[in-house]
Amino acid sequence: MTLDAVLARIDADLPQATDRLLDLLRIPSISTDPAFKADCDTAADWLVADLQSLGIKAEKRPTPGHPMVVGHVDGDGPHLLFYGHYDVQPVDPLELWDRDPFDPEVQDTASGKVIRGRGSSDDKGQLMTFVEACRAWKAEHGSLPCRITFFFEGEEESGSPSLVPFMKENAEELKSDLALICDTGLFESRVPAIVTMLRGLLGEEITITAPDKDLHSGMYGGVAMNPIRVLTRILASLHDDEGRITVPGFYDGVPELPDEIRQQWQGLAFDHAKFLGDVDLSVPAGETDRTPIEMIWSRPTCEVNGIWGGYTGAGFKTVLPSKASAKVSFRLVGDQDPHVIRDNFRKMVQDALPADCKVSFSEHGAGPASITETSDPAFEKARVALSDEWQIPAAYVGCGGSIPIAGYFQNILGTTPMLVGFGRDDDQIHSPNEKYDLESFHKGIRSWARILDALT
Amino acid sequence: MTLDAVLARIDADLPQATDRLLDLLRIPSISTDPAFKADCDTAADWLVADLQSLGIKAEKRPTPGHPMVVGHVDGDGPHLLFYGHYDVQPVDPLELWDRDPFDPEVQDTASGKVIRGRGSSDDKGQLMTFVEACRAWKAEHGSLPCRITFFFEGEEESGSPSLVPFMKENAEELKSDLALICDTGLFESRVPAIVTMLRGLLGEEITITAPDKDLHSGMYGGVAMNPIRVLTRILASLHDDEGRITVPGFYDGVPELPDEIRQQWQGLAFDHAKFLGDVDLSVPAGETDRTPIEMIWSRPTCEVNGIWGGYTGAGFKTVLPSKASAKVSFRLVGDQDPHVIRDNFRKMVQDALPADCKVSFSEHGAGPASITETSDPAFEKARVALSDEWQIPAAYVGCGGSIPIAGYFQNILGTTPMLVGFGRDDDQIHSPNEKYDLESFHKGIRSWARILDALT
Repeated sequence: MTLDAVLARIDADLPQATDRLLDLLRIPSISTDPAFKADCDTAADWLVADLQSLGIKAEKRPTPGHPMVVGHVDGDGPHLLFYGHYDVQPVDPLELWDRDPFDPEVQDTASGKVIRGRGSSDDKGQLMTFVEACRAWKAEHGSLPCRITFFFEGEEESGSPSLVPFMKENAEELKSDLALICDTGLFESRVPAIVTMLRGLLGEEITITAPDKDLHSGMYGGVAMNPIRVLTRILASLHDDEGRITVPGFYDGVPELPDEIRQQWQGLAFDHAKFLGDVDLSVPAGETDRTPIEMIWSRPTCEVNGIWGGYTGAGFKTVLPSKASAKVSFRLVGDQDPHVIRDNFRKMVQDALPADCKVSFSEHGAGPASITETSDPAFEKARVALSDEWQIPAAYVGCGGSIPIAGYFQNILGTTPMLVGFGRDDDQIHSPNEKYDLESFHKGIRSWARILDALT
Repeated sequence: MTLDAVLARIDADLPQATDRLLDLLRIPSISTDPAFKADCDTAADWLVADLQSLGIKAEKRPTPGHPMVVGHVDGDGPHLLFYGHYDVQPVDPLELWDRDPFDPEVQDTASGKVIRGRGSSDDKGQLMTFVEACRAWKAEHGSLPCRITFFFEGEEESGSPSLVPFMKENAEELKSDLALICDTGLFESRVPAIVTMLRGLLGEEITITAPDKDLHSGMYGGVAMNPIRVLTRILASLHDDEGRITVPGFYDGVPELPDEIRQQWQGLAFDHAKFLGDVDLSVPAGETDRTPIEMIWSRPTCEVNGIWGGYTGAGFKTVLPSKASAKVSFRLVGDQDPHVIRDNFRKMVQDALPADCKVSFSEHGAGPASITETSDPAFEKARVALSDEWQIPAAYVGCGGSIPIAGYFQNILGTTPMLVGFGRDDDQIHSPNEKYDLESFHKGIRSWARILDALT
């Protein structure tokens, strides 16, 4: 059977595939920080060259931000598109990394071998699972099994500002029968999963200005308004005592969970005590009348992701600062409209400002939630293929994260997205010491080979 | 008349005196930052050498922190002590300085010549007014007019941790008839003033920890407690809607202003519209039932001087951080006990912590307020001398700042402190572009010569 040959080749080629991934991980393609612009470009070039080595017509496509990588290969049967992103999160606090985040290596750990380095799981390692499956397939068959479009983005970690315009401008080229997206994880680090419910994401940065310069708190303290006092009052008011978010109209469009989904999720026996215990917590922090799995998969959130103002160095300085800032993000579900929520949030902040204070806002992305229709038989075929590889029945699940591109494929291109990924809860994505289990990488590649076989 | 000769010499020597001050300002003696420890030592050495050049037996005296400088000169008449501090505030945000803070110069401005640089006003420039007055006196008379002890500290901007132990250990040596302290300003930048009411200062740093590592807000947002949310709620609760501070027992020991003082302050016709307008504000931020001058001179305050947590760089990072921190200071009046308030503040924070959250505290100084008894005839003599120099009747005033040393002289040594200084409201002490008017420096030197003459 030819699938067996492809899987055997994947097994034999794993050391070389790992070396290729380490190569890609060495490129510090942090998209959010302009200092790394050239590195993002280098990562795109690397991918173009790698796709070309598989006989794929690939090229770097400019955008106002970091470039897209688009590749095409012809073939019979369904037209598949594969999406991944080559950019990575910033690495600070750097002092918490055990090694240089961009000097990756394979490490032995108590729970097996891991690939350690920024982007190993999110998303370079996951992106390469599909590329390596294609490489093995082509080596055994001489060609890929069907028409495939490769579509790699370099701005996913910075709100994807160029993505929607690029998809609209190139809609005909990017339309396909099914969009495969590899940027999610195994359920409970164990169960292969197809994610069918994703939260949206709205990012806002706010800066409050009170006096027009930093002041001495001895001279002005008590009489001049302190912007940190204003900012903390506003941020503290974003949640009520029951953990509900207070932005006016915030819950408009938030659906109640259908009973059958609720029952299915209960059947997953999610261990929230372990999930929280892993990070030294025990009590869920969200709405008091919701279960933890509902909070993560189906309820909207508001989090302050960063705050700063005044003197933050060693020692003490009795400054009364001129400015204080925060980065705030909202995870969205159902039909919540990110643009309406942005407007309402800004109005709420404006209305809460005391006399003399000013506020400025800057945008950091606004993507709605998405729910995937799974009636296409490809879903059940992929689910069976995943179950065969992992020897555990694969599940349709929700996901707390936000992959706005899933919604864009559906809404802009009319293409159904299928989200399959192999990350684990302890991969520390967005944190120091990010890793990707070698097993995730290996079985991830094998999973895609099985899915390609099942769909063609 | 010999005073005239001293004043004439001060006038003639002003360029050289200014050069000496510029020399001292070039030493970046930031006491709060360990990176500048050697520079603090260098500033102390500079002062020892300068005092020795006046025939004063001066030496650097070690402490667990930065050294003290102590000098003695014998003489008849009263025994005076002069206190100043040679350490300076940090300089960040550095990008807001128009020139290197430690490359000082004399600049022409619309309102006259100024000495620009960190420490020019707080406190190196003020400290040197007295030293230069002594230099001119000695040059004219061959000796100083009375027994004088010079006492310079290097930790005033970082909470003076070594000061009280040093004063206690050297109490006999430091006792005098009157302690002259030059670290205050002209009232409304114009009226010579002796400060008789000073606020105390309590500094606390708090760090809230929720999860034990930084998390991805997509995976954990909504279900894991965010320490920024906890910190902002706690900080926002420190003031009620009327601007009163909510720490339990905070107002214990806060006296009501005596009627005669209230009337005297009303007579000063403080222009709070201009005071706030200078920094682009218009509405006083303190207790709604107090006048601005009361808020600054006689009411306690609570200010957040710094806050930080999560991702604060360019762009956006959807991190749910493990920790969030703030620096909080309280200005104290009357008999408020800084140690009791520290305990009550810490308990209030502890009591407000949700499940799973931890808090750690670190101390940054705790000094009580002080009110000076002005019945010693030296006060009226000094007031007249100041009035003569500035050609404006000098006033006894309050001060929003905290100079805990005033209380220490009174309580530890039994020496009455007399606070005379020549700073102006726009000196930008603790801020970028700190300056000291050349007029403040010049007339400050002349003021001390007149005071020395009047007291001896």
